[in-house]
Amino acid sequence: MTLKLSNRSDIPVFRVLDILRIVNERIAQGEDIIHLDAGQPSDGAPQPALEYGAKILKSGTGLGYTEAMGMPLLRDRIALHYKQHYGIDLPHERIAVTMGASGGFILSFLTVFDAGDRVALAAPGYPAYRNILRTIDITPVEIPAGPETNYQPTVEHLEALEEPIDGLIIASPSNPCGTIIPPDELEKLCAWCDKNGVRLIADEIYHGVTFDEPAETVLRYTENAVIAQSFSKYFAMTGWRLGWLVLPEDVAPRLKALAESLFVAPPTLAQHIAYKTFDHFDVLDGYVARYKANLDILKAELPKAGITKLSDTKGAFYLYADIGNLTNDSERFCRDMLDEAKVSATPGLDFDLERGHQTMRISFAGKTEDIREACRRIQEWRAKKTSNYR
Amino acid sequence: MTLKLSNRSDIPVFRVLDILRIVNERIAQGEDIIHLDAGQPSDGAPQPALEYGAKILKSGTGLGYTEAMGMPLLRDRIALHYKQHYGIDLPHERIAVTMGASGGFILSFLTVFDAGDRVALAAPGYPAYRNILRTIDITPVEIPAGPETNYQPTVEHLEALEEPIDGLIIASPSNPCGTIIPPDELEKLCAWCDKNGVRLIADEIYHGVTFDEPAETVLRYTENAVIAQSFSKYFAMTGWRLGWLVLPEDVAPRLKALAESLFVAPPTLAQHIAYKTFDHFDVLDGYVARYKANLDILKAELPKAGITKLSDTKGAFYLYADIGNLTNDSERFCRDMLDEAKVSATPGLDFDLERGHQTMRISFAGKTEDIREACRRIQEWRAKKTSNYR
Repeated sequence: MTLKLSNRSDIPVFRVLDILRIVNERIAQGEDIIHLDAGQPSDGAPQPALEYGAKILKSGTGLGYTEAMGMPLLRDRIALHYKQHYGIDLPHERIAVTMGASGGFILSFLTVFDAGDRVALAAPGYPAYRNILRTIDITPVEIPAGPETNYQPTVEHLEALEEPIDGLIIASPSNPCGTIIPPDELEKLCAWCDKNGVRLIADEIYHGVTFDEPAETVLRYTENAVIAQSFSKYFAMTGWRLGWLVLPEDVAPRLKALAESLFVAPPTLAQHIAYKTFDHFDVLDGYVARYKANLDILKAELPKAGITKLSDTKGAFYLYADIGNLTNDSERFCRDMLDEAKVSATPGLDFDLERGHQTMRISFAGKTEDIREACRRIQEWRAKKTSNYR
Repeated sequence: MTLKLSNRSDIPVFRVLDILRIVNERIAQGEDIIHLDAGQPSDGAPQPALEYGAKILKSGTGLGYTEAMGMPLLRDRIALHYKQHYGIDLPHERIAVTMGASGGFILSFLTVFDAGDRVALAAPGYPAYRNILRTIDITPVEIPAGPETNYQPTVEHLEALEEPIDGLIIASPSNPCGTIIPPDELEKLCAWCDKNGVRLIADEIYHGVTFDEPAETVLRYTENAVIAQSFSKYFAMTGWRLGWLVLPEDVAPRLKALAESLFVAPPTLAQHIAYKTFDHFDVLDGYVARYKANLDILKAELPKAGITKLSDTKGAFYLYADIGNLTNDSERFCRDMLDEAKVSATPGLDFDLERGHQTMRISFAGKTEDIREACRRIQEWRAKKTSNYR
């Protein structure tokens, strides 16, 4: 007798992870493929932080459970970061260290939204928002956003919604577009949410990875928002699965109880290493300079391959390309680019189920020489092609 | 304007974690307190596994995301463990490496239960089951279980339920009781679940930590159960937040998609170290021998302090004591024992909201000399007491 699976778990696959697995298998078999797919820095945490971790590891002590909200030392360090970086005072009671930003999303969605609540978010967007929401019976309300608003939601979008919403998720810089919500618009969104009793969830996991002005935090404009942050992006600690939340005062104790039951505690050694990374922003800023160099190359070279409509990337390590002039089947386009040009990118369907068949995400967190070579390969590949994708 | 918190997040605090925090703060301030509270081994992963981890860590490579279901190498090693330890063939496709058993519970509950489903479980039991279920809108159906069934649910309990259930959670060895479901009863429970279309979730995280016969796995009796395992208990990797699931064939791909969106991947270095721990069962079996010695001391010494009604512990590192002869207020009893005897245990209310005011959990994962000293202190404390708790 086969038992039922839940309806709530019937969600789309996360394409980029399947692509990543297949590409890694092919690379392991000797194929020379360049990754423009996954959103992970090619460099890891700064070496001194790793050495510090190795020392603790070999001592074999201090590796048990920490508090569910994280080590007080790390929470204090994060609070200090808000003071130093944004000039904002933040008591560490409002900070929760989480199992990646992912763990933070699960905890915060469950703490502030009930089943049946409606939460708006931009499409294209990070697919896990939508999938986590659905899985816990919250209705995602997608706002189709295009280049005219930098793929970001605006107050006008929110005013135009037909039914009231309970929450809004924003991401600045955004995945997959790398676009930033400017401070004045951010302030307006915060004010609109506060006025309308809408809980704002601000994904700030790409803060620090910005190429022009630093990104502003919603913490400057509202006390009611939940902010998600990660040690995987600017801090380059991808595989450590560590992030943090900044919480409204009344949300923090409720979320703590949930964190205890759902996760017990975030990983311990990761917390020690994360603590040390704050002393090595010089290294991390060097990574950001490389991403910027990569972006400049892509912006100069991709148009020569007919990939001309690019997002106005100001942060994160993504370009979102409208390739509607080349294809109506982004999945096939990416598959062929992988097979023929040996360059792997992510079809837009991961980020936008409606319109992603004409878009593609390019991640440029890799090495600059690889980015240059990828551009060369794509140009050569496109030059050989007739326009057989339309 | 204060925004709402969700109803679903209104769950009881996890007392043992608060106790742990307070005790650790007092120890840090110089107080000499013995922990019989938290369920974590006092020793960590075997040293060679840690050294192996330190080497990878210092190399700075191989620390990015793994597949959402875990590194193939580790999944294969776990499959081999089922072959070697239980004599059961298991394809690695049915194994998911998770963010602790906690992450495994979240993923599996969401994959097989919808909102409104009813899931039975024994009281006393691990409070997080109940809390996770409630948070994702599943109704926990508590089965009051006492010493007459070794605090375990039986087919008779299930037959006596007034309304049908969709799922059953069992734990053998159990937290907080350390009791084991014997193979014949386990087989009956599996058959009952299969016959009645009830999804069985088997918590086997204390497998390996057994003092008599090894615990049997439900995998021997059914293909439909979800099995949760952990690297935190027998494997002593507490702070690493790593566990695994064994899944029915049809559940695995569905759970994979959920794992991708909810967690991206389990922590990477933890997976490398976990892989190595399988080579050092000699060290881990040594830990188990120590737990056994600790148990024997407690069983001999606690009755001398009037703590006479103890669970029939055969595994895990817990004794569950019925202290109804001494108190109707286990929380006050434990607080006084902490303040006056400097020994910290967990009041039963964490595990049984109805009857836990007369019970207490004693964790004996610590050092043997500490267990001996704790017994001495409790005896001395009780000797001075009149029976002022009734």
